[in-house]
Amino acid sequence: MTDLPAAIELYTWLTGGPPRHREVVAQDGLEAVFFDFGGGQIELLAAAGSDSPVGRFLARRGPGLHHLAYRVDDVGAELERWRGRGAELIDQRPRPGSEGRLVAFVHPHSAGGVLIELCSPRPS
Amino acid sequence: MTDLPAAIELYTWLTGGPPRHREVVAQDGLEAVFFDFGGGQIELLAAAGSDSPVGRFLARRGPGLHHLAYRVDDVGAELERWRGRGAELIDQRPRPGSEGRLVAFVHPHSAGGVLIELCSPRPS
Repeated sequence: MTDLPAAIELYTWLTGGPPRHREVVAQDGLEAVFFDFGGGQIELLAAAGSDSPVGRFLARRGPGLHHLAYRVDDVGAELERWRGRGAELIDQRPRPGSEGRLVAFVHPHSAGGVLIELCSPRPS
Repeated sequence: MTDLPAAIELYTWLTGGPPRHREVVAQDGLEAVFFDFGGGQIELLAAAGSDSPVGRFLARRGPGLHHLAYRVDDVGAELERWRGRGAELIDQRPRPGSEGRLVAFVHPHSAGGVLIELCSPRPS
């Protein structure tokens, strides 16, 4: 998102409620805003700096759909399943993400042009 | 998708089962392949011709995330809600989509760069 306040307004209207959580993820150079919706969640991403993956995505393509995240019980096991397919992995092993989750990304080259995130449920 | 058979193989693997449905939507110049997954569905789109919206998307951006669809009980009422926000609508009223659904699209200009589909449940 290049205009995060406008996007927050839109998704508050669309989902019928305010964001559940908001967090700057310094190691990824982004700010994330989460809405619960329809059994899943919508994550708005804004660049915390221009020299970050999200900043480069926005500079290259403009705002739009960035990635799809799949919630899985065991990120490491699922990552091995992708590795076993010969997929190009961005993360060789699970790493910390927002809200205490473990996350790992699979490269769009191996997933029909779609950046895939595997993420664990939020710790309760 | 530029390689629909490869995408079908990937999503059969990813979702753990074969497609639920496959349909050529002639009026939209596309072929759609549906997988049920996680309470929603994943729709693979391939161009049925190069001079179609999906064909132009693929030519311009390559394969990747195309749009987000929200299942709503009343497409017409939801479309009016968007119209009331001053949103740019691609469809001024609901029209037939795949599998007997009614659908309407909202322009990415009005939705943070994301093409939005409003669709009714499949008729039972």
